[in-house]
Order: sequence, then C-alpha cells, then structure tokens
Amino acid sequence: MTPEGFLRARADLIASIPPERFAAARARLDSLTKPPGSLGVLEHVAARLSAIQDTVTPAIERPRVIVMAADHGVVAQGVSPYPAAVTAQMVANFLAGGAAVNQLAAWADADVRVVDIGVSSEVIPHPDLVSARVRPGTADMTQGPAMTREEAARAMGVGLELASAAADEGSDAVALGEMGIGNTTAAAAIAAAFTGAAPSDVVGPGTGLDAEGVSRKADAVTRALAVNAPDPTDALGVLVAVGGLEIAGLAGVAIGCAARGIPVVADGFISGAAALVAVRFAPGVAEYLFPSHVSAEPGHRVVLDALGLEPVLDLDMRLGEGTGAVLALGIMDAACRLMSGMATFSEAGVSDKD
Amino acid sequence: MTPEGFLRARADLIASIPPERFAAARARLDSLTKPPGSLGVLEHVAARLSAIQDTVTPAIERPRVIVMAADHGVVAQGVSPYPAAVTAQMVANFLAGGAAVNQLAAWADADVRVVDIGVSSEVIPHPDLVSARVRPGTADMTQGPAMTREEAARAMGVGLELASAAADEGSDAVALGEMGIGNTTAAAAIAAAFTGAAPSDVVGPGTGLDAEGVSRKADAVTRALAVNAPDPTDALGVLVAVGGLEIAGLAGVAIGCAARGIPVVADGFISGAAALVAVRFAPGVAEYLFPSHVSAEPGHRVVLDALGLEPVLDLDMRLGEGTGAVLALGIMDAACRLMSGMATFSEAGVSDKD
Repeated sequence: MTPEGFLRARADLIASIPPERFAAARARLDSLTKPPGSLGVLEHVAARLSAIQDTVTPAIERPRVIVMAADHGVVAQGVSPYPAAVTAQMVANFLAGGAAVNQLAAWADADVRVVDIGVSSEVIPHPDLVSARVRPGTADMTQGPAMTREEAARAMGVGLELASAAADEGSDAVALGEMGIGNTTAAAAIAAAFTGAAPSDVVGPGTGLDAEGVSRKADAVTRALAVNAPDPTDALGVLVAVGGLEIAGLAGVAIGCAARGIPVVADGFISGAAALVAVRFAPGVAEYLFPSHVSAEPGHRVVLDALGLEPVLDLDMRLGEGTGAVLALGIMDAACRLMSGMATFSEAGVSDKD
Repeated sequence: MTPEGFLRARADLIASIPPERFAAARARLDSLTKPPGSLGVLEHVAARLSAIQDTVTPAIERPRVIVMAADHGVVAQGVSPYPAAVTAQMVANFLAGGAAVNQLAAWADADVRVVDIGVSSEVIPHPDLVSARVRPGTADMTQGPAMTREEAARAMGVGLELASAAADEGSDAVALGEMGIGNTTAAAAIAAAFTGAAPSDVVGPGTGLDAEGVSRKADAVTRALAVNAPDPTDALGVLVAVGGLEIAGLAGVAIGCAARGIPVVADGFISGAAALVAVRFAPGVAEYLFPSHVSAEPGHRVVLDALGLEPVLDLDMRLGEGTGAVLALGIMDAACRLMSGMATFSEAGVSDKD
C-alpha cells in the first residue's frame, strides 16, 4: 500500500460517536449536586469525554504530549527573528527537561515524546529522541512546493504510528506540540489555503516580529500561495504546497488518535492548522478533537472558526510546544473528576429545585 | 478593642509590595527559553506571585479553600428556585466530600475548610466543620438592615482568624468559596451599592431563575437599597445593609490573607463581591488578590471592573463553592513551575533573538 493509501485506510477506521452516549452523560451531569449546567465548559468537556470513552465516569490518567520538531525553508525569506538553529537547540532543551512544555507536562502528569520529523541541523543523540526525519526541513515554499506528496504522506504516517504506540502504551489522551522556527508562516499559509482568508489576516508577530517583519511574512505567504496554487479540497496537497513536516506529522497523530478512539488536544496556531488538515482529510477527527486555547497569534481564531470548535482556555499564550494543550489536559482531568467523584442529589440527601 | 477596631488594626498591617520585586520577576521570565511574554497570563500570574512571595521561584504547594456557608432572609422574597434548607444540606455534602469543590480541590491538592458562619437550619455535627455561626441567617434586607454593625464586624473577624490559621498552618494561597441559597441577591445588592449599577444590570438567573424570577430579584434589590440607603464609602455599612454573613466572612479572609502576605483567590460573583468589600475596606488587599474566572452571572463583570483586575479563566461557570478559584489555583501552580523549572537561554545553550 502507498503511504497515501495507508493514510486513507486508517482514516476510514474512525468511528462516529453514538448520540445516546451524550444523553447518558447529560443525565449523569444533571443528577449531580449542582444546578444544571452550572459548571459550564467543564460539563461540556466532561460530556464529550464520556461519549468518547463510552462511560459516565471518564478519566484522563495517562496523557501524553507528542512534540514534533521540523525546520522550514521559508525562513530564507526573513520570517522569524530567531535563527533556524534554535529548532535543534530547543529539541535538546525538551530532552533535557528545561522547556516550558516539560514543566507544564509534569504539572499535568503527562509524559513527553520528542520527535525529530524534519529538523535541518544536527540534533544531539538522546535515548528519548524519536528520530523519524522525513527530510531535513521543507523547501522554501515561496519558490515551489514545500515537500513532495510522498514526503507529506510519510510524515503523516509517522504521526499515525506514534498515535498507535500511544494507544498501545495506555495513553488516554494525546496533546499536540511542536517546535519549528518559521512554522507560524506555514500555519498561516495553510489557514489561508483552506479558508480563503487574506494572508494579512492570518499572519502575526509569531515569536516576536516587528511590523515590517509581519508585512514581509504576509508577502511570503502571498507568494507561496501564488506559486503553488493549492487546492483546498485536497488536504494532502495543501501540506505538499505550503505545509511543514511537524504539521503533517501532527495531522497524522490526530487522525491516528481518532482512529483509536482517543481524545486529541490541539495547542495553538500551528497544531490548530495541523488539526484543520486532519479534519479536512478525515472529517470524523472533529468528534475526538479538543482545541485547548486561543493563541494570541491572530490566525488561530480563523483556524478555530474553520474547525467550528470552541477552545477551553484563553490565556494570551503564543509559545507553542504543546504548552496550552497540556494546560487543557489538566482542566479536562478536573472535569472528569466531577463525573466520578460528585454525589448525586439523592445520594447526598440534597433537595433539588422546587 | 471593638470588633470593628480589630478589623481596622489588621487592615493597617497590609504591606505594599515593592516595585523592584516585579522587575526581578520580569528579568527572570525574560531569561527563560521562550520568546518574551509568550506565556501570556501565566507570566503575569507568575510575576505577581513572585512579588508577593519575594522570590523569583514562587510556589503554591499547600493551598487551601475556605468555604463559608450562610443563609439569607431575602429568600422570603422568592429570589431562588431552591429551598433555604439546601444550604445546610450542601454543608453536609462538602463535609462528606461529595460536592464539586471537593473534587476540584483534590485535583489542585488544596485542603478544604467548611465554615458555618450563619446557616439558619440545623447542620449535622461533623469533626471537620468550623462552627462560627454569628447569627442564623441574615434578616430580610427588603425590610431593613441584613445584620447589625457588630455582627458584620464579627463575621469579618471570623475570616481574619481563619486567614491567620491558614498562614500559621503553612497555606501558601487561599481560595474563597461560599454556599448560601439567596446569596446572588446579596452580591447583586452589594455590587449595585458600591458601583451605582442598576439592579437590573447586576441580577441574573443565579441557580436557575426564569425571567419572571430574575425580575422579582431585581425588584428585591431595588427595595433593599431604597430601604437601607447604604453609604458606598462605608464598606462595613454596605455589609450591614445588604450583605451576607458568608460574604462578610470572606471579606475578612481576604483582608487577613493580605495582612499575612498570602495570595488570595476569589471565585465568582459572590466571593467577588466579598473581595470588593475587602478592597473598599482596605485598598491594599488588591495587591494580593487574584480573581479566578468570569462567572456566567452578569453582575460579576461589574464587580471585576470595579476591582480593576482581570480573571485567569472564563469557563462559563456559575456554581460558586470556590470551584473556579480552585481551578485557578491549579493554573497558578503551573505558572510557578515555569519560574523554577525552565532553563534559561544560557543554561540550555539556545540562541536568543537575532
């Protein structure tokens, strides 16, 4: 089977969630000692997790964050204030436990998988590194396609395999994280390609561009879309044209998690773009997908609107790495505890509404 | 010393936080391996906790939630769909560990103190119950003052003592929680008294009133303000006129925490109203105060604007009990871990911005 055929076969395994599971979760929530609906977003999250796990006492006890790293040829266009070497340096930082995502993952009791799916410079060997480099960074998308169709499918395949491994190892939720200097430019191009949004509406300062830099970035996205003319109905083709290897890999993780019936938590703009690729490739992914937060990066709102899903948090974050997704895992764990630990009105002898 | 004199003396102990502590926290945050400011609200929270604790590696390791329960004479005006007996029933539920706040406190590793500061019906004895009933519920504020000035000061004094006990027992943050059928009506009257907002702009459905009920509630607030004419420059007088015993107690907790240099986390509309009482009584409290979330109850936005502080979360919650405050404690813990656990650019060998 070709890598693309394998992807399609895996996507076809995604099961739609029976509506009666939501009704059962709702009935449980309304029996607990609180006014109906008074726990807001927590109730919504708890009901969705109940339906996914097919139990009124869902749990997130062994979450994992998969952090994919890759480089981007488009950095040649001056779209980031940081040098490309930072991608590999941050991979080392993730493996040493010194990055933000490591601290927040520890807080959420999540384990961390760090994946080199397309870093362009040397990554110092480490026993915990998943080495799955499809190519050393993408080509500059302003000059032609970012990668070949076979490479895009292979990168998504890496994500599928990591999702399966997570499921086999008992992970009950997976958060999407990424690192890649230049990747907000790729995410902006993906968002524009799928939604038709103007490049100027989806680019932002990223790691800290000034106004001139943001304008240069919008120009790079405009040129990349003009050169490659991606077809928005061909999700894989959008990745080929303007994607990133980590974005392709995370799209694969999302599809793989949905195929295995595991909730998948997107982080900010880049992993949101990956989630959008996944949903456009396989719409059933949306039933398993939880956007975690609204990034300060303006394109993220466009991506969330295209997904039609509301995030849990809005903390003005724009770091990536999976940091927002891991925070949301903590909130999702809290929501699950309500379902299993709260007393019902009858158990507690509390009078219900008049 | 009179109860009121004691309050004033304790409020006078609140120390203003030296600005250089924020600068030190900011310098630490900007040395860590992430673009400056990219962790958004987490950085803001971390900087404030650093300044309060006078360290660039702040920690929240032993938080506590203090849940105060009391009844409200104004329920005679038909302002709640639940009977007043639910207050005592929910106290029993808190003590048995079956309420939402118990599950979320366990999630946040917070201990829970349950206080009867003014329940009107019998509370079943329990070894963990703090019995500090100032009076069995307030009087109906539509007919005259909710309580006497001495009672309001004594209820605040209960809160002062509980804050001191928390500090003595090693609590490093305190969350404010409450239970009291009818207490959104008292909170609405307090918000209107301090801000001049129209009663119709600060009342909401509470635990689940229909439109007619909300209108009845606005009318009760209007009549209570007309009968008592509280002076907005006299915070204690506002409590006397239209307060609740749990609201007075929580205002005391906030003042007591600030006097002991401990961060205090407000929950939703009712504990927000208590925080507003505390800040109007002793403005220095604001430096130690963290609003946790925006309640779905419309008056809460008015209270937050009056406090001039932005909340951490917006989860459409409206339960009270301290549920939102305890969730925020978890996020605050996560923010602290970034300060102590992340590597700096130089430690990690990561290139800083060009």
